[in-house]
Amino acid sequence: MNAPDPQAAWLADSTRRNVPDELIQALKTRFGTQCSTALAVREQHGRDESAFTHVPPPAAVVFAESTTDVADAMKLAAQHKVPVIPFGVGSSLEGHLLAVQGGISLDVSRMNQVLSVNAEDLTVTVQPGVTRKAVNEAVKSDGLFFPIDPGADASIGGMAATRASGTNAVRYGTMRENVLALEVVTAQGNVVRTGTRAKKSSAGYDLTRLMVGSEGTLGIMTEVTLKLYPLPEAISAATCSFPSIEAAVRTTIQVIQMGIPIARCELIDAGTVRMVNAHSKLGLREEPMLLMEFHGSPAGVKEQAELVQDIAGEFGGQSFEWATTPEDRTRLWTARHNAYFAAIQSKPGCRAISTDTCVPISKLADCLLDSVAEADASGLPYFLVGHVGDGNFHFGYLIDPDSAAERETAEALNHKLVARALALEGTCTGEHGVGLHKMGFLLDETGAGAVAMMRAVKQALDPDNILNPGKIFSMG
Amino acid sequence: MNAPDPQAAWLADSTRRNVPDELIQALKTRFGTQCSTALAVREQHGRDESAFTHVPPPAAVVFAESTTDVADAMKLAAQHKVPVIPFGVGSSLEGHLLAVQGGISLDVSRMNQVLSVNAEDLTVTVQPGVTRKAVNEAVKSDGLFFPIDPGADASIGGMAATRASGTNAVRYGTMRENVLALEVVTAQGNVVRTGTRAKKSSAGYDLTRLMVGSEGTLGIMTEVTLKLYPLPEAISAATCSFPSIEAAVRTTIQVIQMGIPIARCELIDAGTVRMVNAHSKLGLREEPMLLMEFHGSPAGVKEQAELVQDIAGEFGGQSFEWATTPEDRTRLWTARHNAYFAAIQSKPGCRAISTDTCVPISKLADCLLDSVAEADASGLPYFLVGHVGDGNFHFGYLIDPDSAAERETAEALNHKLVARALALEGTCTGEHGVGLHKMGFLLDETGAGAVAMMRAVKQALDPDNILNPGKIFSMG
Repeated sequence: MNAPDPQAAWLADSTRRNVPDELIQALKTRFGTQCSTALAVREQHGRDESAFTHVPPPAAVVFAESTTDVADAMKLAAQHKVPVIPFGVGSSLEGHLLAVQGGISLDVSRMNQVLSVNAEDLTVTVQPGVTRKAVNEAVKSDGLFFPIDPGADASIGGMAATRASGTNAVRYGTMRENVLALEVVTAQGNVVRTGTRAKKSSAGYDLTRLMVGSEGTLGIMTEVTLKLYPLPEAISAATCSFPSIEAAVRTTIQVIQMGIPIARCELIDAGTVRMVNAHSKLGLREEPMLLMEFHGSPAGVKEQAELVQDIAGEFGGQSFEWATTPEDRTRLWTARHNAYFAAIQSKPGCRAISTDTCVPISKLADCLLDSVAEADASGLPYFLVGHVGDGNFHFGYLIDPDSAAERETAEALNHKLVARALALEGTCTGEHGVGLHKMGFLLDETGAGAVAMMRAVKQALDPDNILNPGKIFSMG
Repeated sequence: MNAPDPQAAWLADSTRRNVPDELIQALKTRFGTQCSTALAVREQHGRDESAFTHVPPPAAVVFAESTTDVADAMKLAAQHKVPVIPFGVGSSLEGHLLAVQGGISLDVSRMNQVLSVNAEDLTVTVQPGVTRKAVNEAVKSDGLFFPIDPGADASIGGMAATRASGTNAVRYGTMRENVLALEVVTAQGNVVRTGTRAKKSSAGYDLTRLMVGSEGTLGIMTEVTLKLYPLPEAISAATCSFPSIEAAVRTTIQVIQMGIPIARCELIDAGTVRMVNAHSKLGLREEPMLLMEFHGSPAGVKEQAELVQDIAGEFGGQSFEWATTPEDRTRLWTARHNAYFAAIQSKPGCRAISTDTCVPISKLADCLLDSVAEADASGLPYFLVGHVGDGNFHFGYLIDPDSAAERETAEALNHKLVARALALEGTCTGEHGVGLHKMGFLLDETGAGAVAMMRAVKQALDPDNILNPGKIFSMG
């Protein structure tokens, strides 16, 4: 298994800086101040939250404000066969936003309008630059919420493009299940709608789900219709400490296998609790911990919580602490969502190499415990959090980005972990996407035949390979 | 909007009977008695439950017993560029199985092994010829069930190929949400896996969902991994009669908008109740009726049922009758699933032209009530059943298949209904697929741009157009 070296790929790529002046001038004419070639702007758009830092930035950034803007930029780029990389808030962890084959960045963050809330149908249609928190603000007064919550306050376009999920996926699914329909601009600059607001449909190929998770390589999303959910009548969150990671994992497995409709079930290991306490000024017990949440009627929540407490007790779980007020819950989940940033701050100047394996729940203990032992033996500091109700967890190996030795150690740990997850019928990425970092892993996971099918689809929809090229798989 | 006339399409198609003797001989050599050219066998494989009856049958039928059989048959057909039409149990309602461009039928009904039940992970892997009832038999002893239930005891392969759903979809989703992974034989005869048993994944394009709903036009499924659910601790079913269809629909809308996790919510109109009573020897009140089911803990089921009873009462619903024993429930749901056959038997020799629109729930009353008025005014007998919790309902216009006038009346009703559903942001097909019957409607619904994308994907994966050609959209 070989993860590609983006630096080498960049240097070897003779099409780099492939943006002719003529295109830049055409963009400036069409977009005026919405088009920037300032180095600081370009550099901000040429990186993300991944540990990749050595790729030169895009040649220009276009700030789209409408579907027409996106279509016009795409048509101009297509005339010159120049790559276009869609950009939301820059929170990718896998190098999705890096201009590895040059080209321009198409920033949709100004497309931040909530277009329509259809409270009666439990749907909302938004522009792609709207963030997940902004969606929730917009629908709160209707008694509704949108559950998908990656750690960052990511854009809905970016979340759809990476098939993101988060802490609520165990009950509410991922972007795969929660995007109803899209408006997409194609590689040719055409505007296409991929679905309706009907809850289900058998009308032809599922273009919506082909686009969800395509990481900007098949089209640029300009409208996203999402499913919403009624805010539960009752919500309770709780933390429970365990004598070991294994005890916490075994509790989780049993909760899921019993079909208890738990809304959130998150693992944090002792070291990460320590980082979170330091960052968020909390006093959580520095032991392996499950953070849980229950949604339903008051009686239903009580019933679920009692069942889970019984199971946790059997595995030595103790000090079940409840957070029932909205303020307490918000503090707890904000701390959880900031675990990544808490970890980054624990080692100044570091970057995290994040893992994202997901395995069938019965294999979770096997996969996780051996990987913890390996990480401990490596000597690298790391954080460990997991959406364990889904069998998905993340190590973040904290490396000095300028230390080749640390990077190598981290990548070796990641390779061992992915190999283990694949042998256990799992996936190399549960929610972050492939990007640059997991192209080799994707091939190991799906085999050459499936990647050939993906490549054929890409070739059919983007024959000039200008939509975020060099990501997911190589076209070579 | 024009639905194609398959008879004319057939006669105009110069590639018909395009199966050379050489291929038939090669198939007989490879497959022996697994390959049949007997007219009765071919005719049985050249039709389905749709009202299309005038298309000549496939030239031969191959009964595959393994993935290797499917791959070998596909390779032989590919050498001769001859169409291959996958066949499960023949319960399609949209002409999916008709050999409109000639070719051979590939019957997978002997591939009926449940390959592995992973009870701890709530997954099962089956061959495509396993029927939905057989899946449920296989997992019952583990306390699990598979909820997707089209009326017929369809094959899992056919259900995946049409993105089927049924009465449980309002709570458990459709085949879109419940297929985890596939093994697929490509147009070239290669074997590809599209996913793992991990509950979620962001590993590249979602080939699983590209295949689900592709109606045999992109590949032939040879293994299907499905999600399972724990059998609920408590189940209660109830019928409730209403003074009007509108009252039943308004009750449904309110139940859904309140977020009550109802497991089934089915509408049957008074005329269809009459047909069901006659067919299934039941004594249901011959009034518009909701059939409902509640799943959960005993307390949860009671809570849901009380809420729904209150809502129904506000709309004049009465005689809430409970079926709590498994036998009573089975009798009730069997009668519901047999509504289609009950209707067919009510007019000897008839065929049903089935509609399948699905609209956002807030538009359900608008869409349904006007269409009922039109159907009543037409004078054609019809049945009306609906998965109304999803906004999906079916008219079945009962026609004499030899009466051009009745067919025309039915198609005119269908056209008006689909136009209305599309104007209300709905879809022309919630769960039956496009097949032959809705190709014009698909174009109206998605627009030429989206169909062009589908065509490009088809061309990329099946360049010789030999996988179930002439369905969903034309390649011309």
